[in-house]
Amino acid sequence: MSIEKQFTDHMKKLKAYNEATSLLYWDLRTGAPKKGVDLRSETIGTISSDIFIMSTSDEFGSLLSALEEKKAELDPVMLRSVEEARKQYDLSKKIPPEEYKEFVILQSKAESVWETAKDTSDFSLFEPYLEKMVATTKKMIGYWGEKNGSAYNTLLDQYEPGMTTEILDEVFGQLRNRIIPLVQKINASTSKPDTDFLYKPFPKEAQREFSNKILEQLGYDFEAGRLDETVHPFMIGINRQDVRITTKYDEKDFRTAVFGTIHECGHALYEQNIGEDLSGTFVEGGASMGIHESQSLFLENFVGRSEKFWENNYELLKSYSPEQFGSVPQQDFIRAINESQPSLIRIEADELTYALHIMIRYELEKGLFNGAFEVKDLPQLWNDKYEEYLGIRPSNDAEGVLQDVHWAGASFGYFPSYALGYMYAAQFKNAMLKDLPNYDELLAEGNVAPIREWMTDKVHRHGSMKKPLEILEDATGEGLNADHLAKYLEEKYSKVYQLV
Amino acid sequence: MSIEKQFTDHMKKLKAYNEATSLLYWDLRTGAPKKGVDLRSETIGTISSDIFIMSTSDEFGSLLSALEEKKAELDPVMLRSVEEARKQYDLSKKIPPEEYKEFVILQSKAESVWETAKDTSDFSLFEPYLEKMVATTKKMIGYWGEKNGSAYNTLLDQYEPGMTTEILDEVFGQLRNRIIPLVQKINASTSKPDTDFLYKPFPKEAQREFSNKILEQLGYDFEAGRLDETVHPFMIGINRQDVRITTKYDEKDFRTAVFGTIHECGHALYEQNIGEDLSGTFVEGGASMGIHESQSLFLENFVGRSEKFWENNYELLKSYSPEQFGSVPQQDFIRAINESQPSLIRIEADELTYALHIMIRYELEKGLFNGAFEVKDLPQLWNDKYEEYLGIRPSNDAEGVLQDVHWAGASFGYFPSYALGYMYAAQFKNAMLKDLPNYDELLAEGNVAPIREWMTDKVHRHGSMKKPLEILEDATGEGLNADHLAKYLEEKYSKVYQLV
Repeated sequence: MSIEKQFTDHMKKLKAYNEATSLLYWDLRTGAPKKGVDLRSETIGTISSDIFIMSTSDEFGSLLSALEEKKAELDPVMLRSVEEARKQYDLSKKIPPEEYKEFVILQSKAESVWETAKDTSDFSLFEPYLEKMVATTKKMIGYWGEKNGSAYNTLLDQYEPGMTTEILDEVFGQLRNRIIPLVQKINASTSKPDTDFLYKPFPKEAQREFSNKILEQLGYDFEAGRLDETVHPFMIGINRQDVRITTKYDEKDFRTAVFGTIHECGHALYEQNIGEDLSGTFVEGGASMGIHESQSLFLENFVGRSEKFWENNYELLKSYSPEQFGSVPQQDFIRAINESQPSLIRIEADELTYALHIMIRYELEKGLFNGAFEVKDLPQLWNDKYEEYLGIRPSNDAEGVLQDVHWAGASFGYFPSYALGYMYAAQFKNAMLKDLPNYDELLAEGNVAPIREWMTDKVHRHGSMKKPLEILEDATGEGLNADHLAKYLEEKYSKVYQLV
Repeated sequence: MSIEKQFTDHMKKLKAYNEATSLLYWDLRTGAPKKGVDLRSETIGTISSDIFIMSTSDEFGSLLSALEEKKAELDPVMLRSVEEARKQYDLSKKIPPEEYKEFVILQSKAESVWETAKDTSDFSLFEPYLEKMVATTKKMIGYWGEKNGSAYNTLLDQYEPGMTTEILDEVFGQLRNRIIPLVQKINASTSKPDTDFLYKPFPKEAQREFSNKILEQLGYDFEAGRLDETVHPFMIGINRQDVRITTKYDEKDFRTAVFGTIHECGHALYEQNIGEDLSGTFVEGGASMGIHESQSLFLENFVGRSEKFWENNYELLKSYSPEQFGSVPQQDFIRAINESQPSLIRIEADELTYALHIMIRYELEKGLFNGAFEVKDLPQLWNDKYEEYLGIRPSNDAEGVLQDVHWAGASFGYFPSYALGYMYAAQFKNAMLKDLPNYDELLAEGNVAPIREWMTDKVHRHGSMKKPLEILEDATGEGLNADHLAKYLEEKYSKVYQLV
């Protein structure tokens, strides 16, 4: 059997195993009976561990080396698949197996300790674990070798290939300098939107029906996916023709389901529209966390929270909850769903202040890994930064440094992707306007297809054939530029808060 | 690592893989999006093939041999697990791999040819495939070695360990001699139940709610299972604490869902109540097809179609479809749901005539494998037997010899299990009456727990630690005895049709 065929078979086999684990996970979250959960978790563990073994076997390593020796003969998809496989292979394989296993155990302990620490708002419980995780991650960076000149850049590259602190410092700095004054102006504004009606009862079944209508309108393919209910919403690709999303219904705040569904729909449109030529390969997924997030945020904010979108959909929404919205003019509705208010919890933050939450985490991670400070300094630094950027100070660590699960899972370097997603989205929108000058009219007519097709052409179909910054440049004609997001936010919030 | 530990690990790993394939299958049937089906089928194929490889590896063979050498030291569960593993191992391993593979391909082709043959009612299309399947199966029996003295007994033993044509000839003969006169008397009876009301509309949602109530009453554990909707209802054990059932709702015949759900509930109660001491081993499943079917048929017929059961539930049923049942006295309802009428299609047959359908198939299979006749003789023989036993003759092969999928899947020897299930069920019921003389009152009160607990004690908890006939003897104090089913049917139908 040719080595190409062996490699293709290996990819197909991994796809099958990943389909199984994805479905086992999806089912666990959506409807698996309670008593079966423990055995289910063991099953997921067993199959995941076999996937790991298959992906890191010496045989597979030799296969990769053999393919790398004949790079010139490989077609582009095969070439990029080999590159991706090599990256993942080295990440796992360069760590001595015993240390890797210990790290997995440490992570699992750390997560459970973090839960207790958060519940009791006691950072000192979590501190020794976080210290160990940072130390072990630094050791692993030693095994991997530094990428792009610093320890933290090595981590960034794992989530956002090619991203560095040099780029982030610049764009985050620019963005912060535009967002903070805007937040201050909003605080000072006397024209605040009335938001009481947002919290009026909206029955779950009606929310579900409305969400389904919106998904159809946005082009989500229900023949290649389905919508279910979970505590924490997510999108999951079971296979390339089976891309599922979940949502959560809050009868006292319809925004959870409606904007949550639109957000996950953005992720799903990406996965549903990856090129068929990439089918069954290692480049069939999204290009990066940041590019994925750009798709969900674009749809949620640039489409879902826009005035034009609701020109076409407000009457429909009203029909599902007439008492709630009957006496609310469309203009007031738009202002209300775009309310901005500094807050302490990242996942509850609004579109404007969200990036500030991310910058704080980024600066702390960077400092931790590049040696500027230590784990024990985190709570104080965290609180100081919140005061500096958002003008509010956490009163305890549960609403401060302990709020996110990421560090407990050793996902250092992940946070910046969220803010990058915002910036990418704004930049895509800006470029799209050149090709679709009638963007506003399209939205107002409910004709989203040309917008989605633009994204498919520029982003979706390429899967991870291109690096994130390549996608950005090819689509927009420029490198990462914070100005687009800043401008968008300034225009939007000036209108919502009638700033002068 | 000790060989016991290696074996236990192997069983656990197979359990995990089986959980994955079961869920992939369940999802495919209940709600997987259309476009993902092809990839899903490939995934199931990939993982099933890996399960086959794991179950038939030389390493596993050596492990089995090593365990067999120290049989005396193994605990009973381990010992039976090794026996089960050996049986399956030999079944697969004694066939040369190339021939096995060809057979799998032949089966898959035969199934698709059978579909066309059935659609066009053309046996000649299917004939050459069936001939090849019979010939190949005979060849395999050569590899396996004859069991219990004849080729067909070898096949019977695979579905119903220990079962032989000697036993079946006797009990089927006895049963037939009691059923046929009964069928004739019913045909001649002038007191037929009125069944018009059965076909009145009963909304799906109401059927679902009623089915859920009945499942709860019967002791189905919803924390270790769930009820969903499929075209062909089934029970599937995902893991030992996750035993799911499905049903089908026909708004013009509520019996499909109600009796179908009760039937699958019988299978599920078996799986939900297998002893915890068998957890994670090869003896965690049911003892045989026949014993499994005894549980579903016991619940469906001996409980679900009994007068006493409806004494407790008819008012409840009425409340879900008042117009349909409002003016139907309970007595008439009972007669209607127990209507009997000779028919051509097995899966639509009633409780009384069902066993005759099975006997016909049994006699044909036995003749095929023991050399009495050939594939080409089947259509004529089939039709003659239907005329002889049921007094009706198929007008074409679609409603005759082509109706079942079993032969297209080479499942020769499977059919008798259905009729055995009926006989086992009647025999269990008879034995149960000695321990629970108040059986009727329990049902009438809706107190099914003692009945279910009896079955758990005698059947469920043993998993496949015992052979089917051992379970039967231990539970009832005698060997297979057709008289119990015959008596039950005579009493029941004399009442329904007011026979003298």
